[in-house]
Amino acid sequence: MPEASEFDFIDWIRSLQSSSPNLTIPIGDDLAALQWEKDDLLLVGVDQVLDGVHFDSMLHSPRSIGKKVMNRNLSDCAAMACLPVAAVATVALQRGTPLDYAKELYLGLCAAGDVFNTPVVGGDTASWAGKLALSVTIFGKSAGVQPIRRSGARPGDSIYVTGPLGGSILSRHMEFVPRIKEARQLALEYQITSMIDLSDGLSRDLRHICLQSKVGALIQAGAIPIHPDAIKLSNRTGRPFLEHALHDGEDYELLFTTPDQPRIGTRIGQITHDQEILLEAKGKAYPLQAHGWEHLIS
Amino acid sequence: MPEASEFDFIDWIRSLQSSSPNLTIPIGDDLAALQWEKDDLLLVGVDQVLDGVHFDSMLHSPRSIGKKVMNRNLSDCAAMACLPVAAVATVALQRGTPLDYAKELYLGLCAAGDVFNTPVVGGDTASWAGKLALSVTIFGKSAGVQPIRRSGARPGDSIYVTGPLGGSILSRHMEFVPRIKEARQLALEYQITSMIDLSDGLSRDLRHICLQSKVGALIQAGAIPIHPDAIKLSNRTGRPFLEHALHDGEDYELLFTTPDQPRIGTRIGQITHDQEILLEAKGKAYPLQAHGWEHLIS
Repeated sequence: MPEASEFDFIDWIRSLQSSSPNLTIPIGDDLAALQWEKDDLLLVGVDQVLDGVHFDSMLHSPRSIGKKVMNRNLSDCAAMACLPVAAVATVALQRGTPLDYAKELYLGLCAAGDVFNTPVVGGDTASWAGKLALSVTIFGKSAGVQPIRRSGARPGDSIYVTGPLGGSILSRHMEFVPRIKEARQLALEYQITSMIDLSDGLSRDLRHICLQSKVGALIQAGAIPIHPDAIKLSNRTGRPFLEHALHDGEDYELLFTTPDQPRIGTRIGQITHDQEILLEAKGKAYPLQAHGWEHLIS
Repeated sequence: MPEASEFDFIDWIRSLQSSSPNLTIPIGDDLAALQWEKDDLLLVGVDQVLDGVHFDSMLHSPRSIGKKVMNRNLSDCAAMACLPVAAVATVALQRGTPLDYAKELYLGLCAAGDVFNTPVVGGDTASWAGKLALSVTIFGKSAGVQPIRRSGARPGDSIYVTGPLGGSILSRHMEFVPRIKEARQLALEYQITSMIDLSDGLSRDLRHICLQSKVGALIQAGAIPIHPDAIKLSNRTGRPFLEHALHDGEDYELLFTTPDQPRIGTRIGQITHDQEILLEAKGKAYPLQAHGWEHLIS
């Protein structure tokens, strides 16, 4: 198979390029150009995935790697309740990588973006003596919803998560559905005071909300929805499944606060005045330490 | 010195964060939010720099590495004659990198951005067992100028470059001023039919314009402005300095076409009907092969 040269790869990408209603200059120029509605805020963010940290190129298919980096960024859109519009990507390929492998990475990016009508409108590819690294920058629009920040939680708000937690390392960290639909519905129908996507782990991401909102939290251990993978992993590690649900990270569910009683998600606790984070189990409250995920795989 | 943890680094970045008039949500949330004027196109692009390809971490300071990746992106804005507005960045640090080194990278990004009022409004940092890699995604606005594409060159147009070429490897590839001011002035005062920044080398970048405009070109060898570094490098390599000027790449000057006679730049040739690219030297015309730069350092 031929080695992926930057120029061959770009020619191939161009040949696929589908148009997007807002895209006035597509891939192939120095920059892509998008039209923007005057009432829409432009939301921007970037996330990378690195071999040995966020995926393992010996284990995971290039298509799933491409999907993951796009989905991580789409999950950030969910966290702000914005609608993704377009993305650009970088790929740093190990020298000697076959062109077909590079194509699979790109098809993964596109497959994940397509689910939310988010085309890849630009990118940069290069080969090096280093390992595989990808990044995606995402552009979203507020689309009728004030972006939901991390800093708006107020004492008395309920704390919710959109799904069961823990054990994502068993497979879900590579294959998850960004909670964009849930986020938009929540933001349109309820008063959501703060929101974040669970990438670092519940204990750590809850801390982000509490620090930025200058509040505390009381979590009911028994209320946390436990993913079957947390139990499976617990059987292997010997650690309680609750610990996996609290600290594992890469759940990519949403953690949010609201004074309402939304029909989406599970209530796991309440925001408090005191700036400390407590876990209530068997009638007693303990300080909840943040042991979030930094380097999952390696 | 302490090792750079993602969280320490982000705390430090936040402490520096200056505001921008358009920035409604700064660094520290899931995404940053920018306000956008209704008449402005949003221009987006991304470029990465990789250790051993675009810089050498044993030779180049972290500040100059940070500057380079930002300036490469600003140069793409110049190529479209748009005004840069903001940027986001990724940094993949070798595990064990001191926090001070990471700070220098970031200060380099900011220093280059500041020259053109382009703040870094978001980013992602991680450590890995791999080598140093950075990316910047740039957001620009059309700001009263129709973006100048690669595809508008017409037979009879003159071909110009904004400055002398060749030998950038001696130092200029790490330290250059993106030609944003020149690009804006050209676009505002003259009819510029196509433009590109010289990153791959004159012979290759001219080919991009000709292919996308479906035209050819006749370049006068004697008219190409030669950088003193091309002559210096020629003395080392034994290759003619003209070859360095034609093929070296990373000049980051602008190559543009126009039916006018602008007061910026040097005329080096003319766009032709026939779809071939010729170099005229000593009264004879030869096909100009594209021998552009792909991997400069390694």
